Amino acid sequence: MRASRPEQAPPAAPPLRIGVVGLGMAGALMVSVIRDHARAVLAGAAEPHESLRQRFAADNEAPVFADIESLLRRDDVDAVYIATPHQFHRDHVVLAAEHGKHIVVEKPMALSLADCDAMIAAAERHKVTLIVGHTHSFDPSVRVMRELIASGEYGKLMMLSGANYTDFLYRPRRPEELDTAKGGGILFNQVPHQIDTVRYLTRSRLRSLRAATGILDPRRPTEGNCSVFLDFEDGCFASLTYSGYDRFDTDEWHGWVGEGGYPRKAAHGATTRSWENFKNPEEELAARVERFGYGGSAAPASRIPVHQPHFGVLIASCEKADLRQSPDGVLVYSRDGVKEIPVPMRPGRPGRSDVLDELCDAVQCGVAPAHDGAFARGTVEASLAILKSAQERREVIL
Amino acid sequence: MRASRPEQAPPAAPPLRIGVVGLGMAGALMVSVIRDHARAVLAGAAEPHESLRQRFAADNEAPVFADIESLLRRDDVDAVYIATPHQFHRDHVVLAAEHGKHIVVEKPMALSLADCDAMIAAAERHKVTLIVGHTHSFDPSVRVMRELIASGEYGKLMMLSGANYTDFLYRPRRPEELDTAKGGGILFNQVPHQIDTVRYLTRSRLRSLRAATGILDPRRPTEGNCSVFLDFEDGCFASLTYSGYDRFDTDEWHGWVGEGGYPRKAAHGATTRSWENFKNPEEELAARVERFGYGGSAAPASRIPVHQPHFGVLIASCEKADLRQSPDGVLVYSRDGVKEIPVPMRPGRPGRSDVLDELCDAVQCGVAPAHDGAFARGTVEASLAILKSAQERREVIL
Ligand SMILES: NC(=O)c1ccc[n+]([C@@H]2O[C@H](COP(=O)([O-])OP(=O)(O)OC[C@H]3O[C@@H](n4cnc5c(N)ncnc54)[C@H](O)[C@@H]3O)[C@@H](O)[C@H]2O)c1
Ligand SMILES: NC(=O)c1ccc[n+]([C@@H]2O[C@H](COP(=O)([O-])OP(=O)(O)OC[C@H]3O[C@@H](n4cnc5c(N)ncnc54)[C@H](O)[C@@H]3O)[C@@H](O)[C@H]2O)c1
Repeated sequence: MRASRPEQAPPAAPPLRIGVVGLGMAGALMVSVIRDHARAVLAGAAEPHESLRQRFAADNEAPVFADIESLLRRDDVDAVYIATPHQFHRDHVVLAAEHGKHIVVEKPMALSLADCDAMIAAAERHKVTLIVGHTHSFDPSVRVMRELIASGEYGKLMMLSGANYTDFLYRPRRPEELDTAKGGGILFNQVPHQIDTVRYLTRSRLRSLRAATGILDPRRPTEGNCSVFLDFEDGCFASLTYSGYDRFDTDEWHGWVGEGGYPRKAAHGATTRSWENFKNPEEELAARVERFGYGGSAAPASRIPVHQPHFGVLIASCEKADLRQSPDGVLVYSRDGVKEIPVPMRPGRPGRSDVLDELCDAVQCGVAPAHDGAFARGTVEASLAILKSAQERREVIL
Repeated sequence: MRASRPEQAPPAAPPLRIGVVGLGMAGALMVSVIRDHARAVLAGAAEPHESLRQRFAADNEAPVFADIESLLRRDDVDAVYIATPHQFHRDHVVLAAEHGKHIVVEKPMALSLADCDAMIAAAERHKVTLIVGHTHSFDPSVRVMRELIASGEYGKLMMLSGANYTDFLYRPRRPEELDTAKGGGILFNQVPHQIDTVRYLTRSRLRSLRAATGILDPRRPTEGNCSVFLDFEDGCFASLTYSGYDRFDTDEWHGWVGEGGYPRKAAHGATTRSWENFKNPEEELAARVERFGYGGSAAPASRIPVHQPHFGVLIASCEKADLRQSPDGVLVYSRDGVKEIPVPMRPGRPGRSDVLDELCDAVQCGVAPAHDGAFARGTVEASLAILKSAQERREVIL
């Protein structure tokens, strides 16, 4: 495989036929991204929830099945995007590899390193591409930052400092999402975006970390806030803070453009208050499926954002400049002042289309993906190390 | 001594007669603060630089001496504010204590724990008050945050996250200020503001820290950026980042109100470019004395700021709310939304008048100062531990 993206446009390969496994929040979003992608076609879906299947069937010609194996047996499916709950990632990836399908699996890759290893081994054995995403490290402005850093123009990357304060914990949830042992809480669902991003920017191995976590609301008994110090082998270091308690909101420092790239208004506490209206967990779960699943009222439809996506604030300090994402590009602060390098909106949904780009580049052009199994395993390792560091109140060497 | 401030106004004590030792940047500022303070009078000064003495004599009736001992021998001096370079703090404090003077000494208290211990012992032996300041933990909005936290209304303080990106490294400097072994760089001059503030807010003992530092510009060969993770005994944790390289500027996230409380404009790189105009270190040093010393063009005169002072951004996450300084108060973010608790401008210079309040409360009313020698020693210990953690790339237990 080649190490980086080909200079020329890829040769006219037939579009990649992609099936979607799981039509919940993540899967619903990817359906429209696949439909809009120049090098991909939607080849089918698998989803046990009947209502979601019906909504999908009403919108799409592609077949939809109640079980994953029926989708995997199809000859007209080249690749699958696996967006099932974390606990299924390992089995679904291994199964897809056994069926010879290329794979994108949602983050977190899995909940244990043994599972990650089994997934990597299955993909190697069956010679299929394995990519883990989406995370916000696929955001176009993050990629531009990475390229600016790699250009050497600003010297070596030395320090990263990031924070994200959101309403994560009070969005409607499945029970597993509130149980750390099942991959609930921010360590497996939110912090991986931050870890992936700093790892993607540094390109260096994580040497050690020191972290602490909090469970501030007993009604949501899983980690909701966290601070972590990361030491990379090449001497770069990073400091990341996350809080999902719907109080202070870092979008204030990003011109009130939300994570997805849509302009928004301040709404401190509103998600909490609306969650408090649920009478019981069953009602919450039903709302989650209805509202966030395929075709639901809260599922971001095909409306393309007007700004770049982001995941809080992040300052990357190189020897000669600080770099920072802005709503529409990358800001470069140096002795010469500040300049904005625009990141153009390309067709498709920024961030998620980029996942398909990486898949198509790998499968159709032989470009080694940056977000492969080995890379994603490193982020799972970091999430587990954060838990351990917090529990044992000490630095964890990786 | 009482543990906290008296409820009533202090009894009508005669004003405290305060002498200023060192008429450089810090001393110049304090002269006007003493003059404006209701419970203090300016009783004299000591400063070896003749031009600074002349400027002082032209403005003030109080006597000014070339050496500290002449000031300390005066019977009409009750207390001294010691604003000499770090390396003199120990000797000047011990000397002042021996002369029976109450003492405010500038931060950092000293450069070694042995020196701190000697200073604390001298103050105890001679029964004088010893306060270390100013740091930004004296800022009125920080004190209001501390009181809000102590009220218990928002539950326990769990996490602190702070960042300050400034132009510190390129302001005109004395040679010692660029030599870490002599107390140069951000670890002894800037980060202590952040450490003091989080320690003041948590009121808990620092248990361990993990840090890394950077020297990004070989022309300024001392630490200019740093990230530190702090673990407190009571379970609270903090993450602090600092960069003094004049690139990104956190005042952008504070409504472009600068550290001192004055509205300002973005000026990324301007301090660097103006520093680059100095032909040699001698010219830089002369400019530092001329411009920042007593009566100099850059010495903040008696003009009182219109907003509260601050030191970058800091989010304090309690169990039930996030607290954050705003230009004019404290923002409280909770399930009920966001509200601003105004911090009224009192007469005098916010932050620095508060140092004198703490001194007068201690000397005139017997209130134990929060920023005493033992407290300040803890911050010196933290600065030294940051250096050690960065050098050895490991967590340091305190
Ligand atoms: N990258 C992102 O921004 C992002 C956003 C949301 C979710 N995710 C990830 O996507 C995954 C799914 O999360 P979600 O929020 O969409 O959850 P969800 O509950 O909304 O959706 C999961 C869907 O998978 C279906 N499913 C369960 N078993 C299945 C099976 N055997 N075959 C096919 N479908 C099956 C469920 O019925 C459900 O509809 C998680 O791993 C999550 O971390 C990523
Ligand atoms: N809290 C703050 O915000 C703040 C701001 C600036 C400085 N400081 C602290 O104040 C101290 C002084 O720093 P500065 O920036 O004002 O330095 P500076 O060089 O501007 O001033 C120091 C002054 O002390 C004088 N001096 C030297 N030896 C003396 C002696 N024996 N007796 C009397 N005066 C003597 C020098 O001539 C000089 O004028 C340092 O410890 C620094 O950390 C604190």
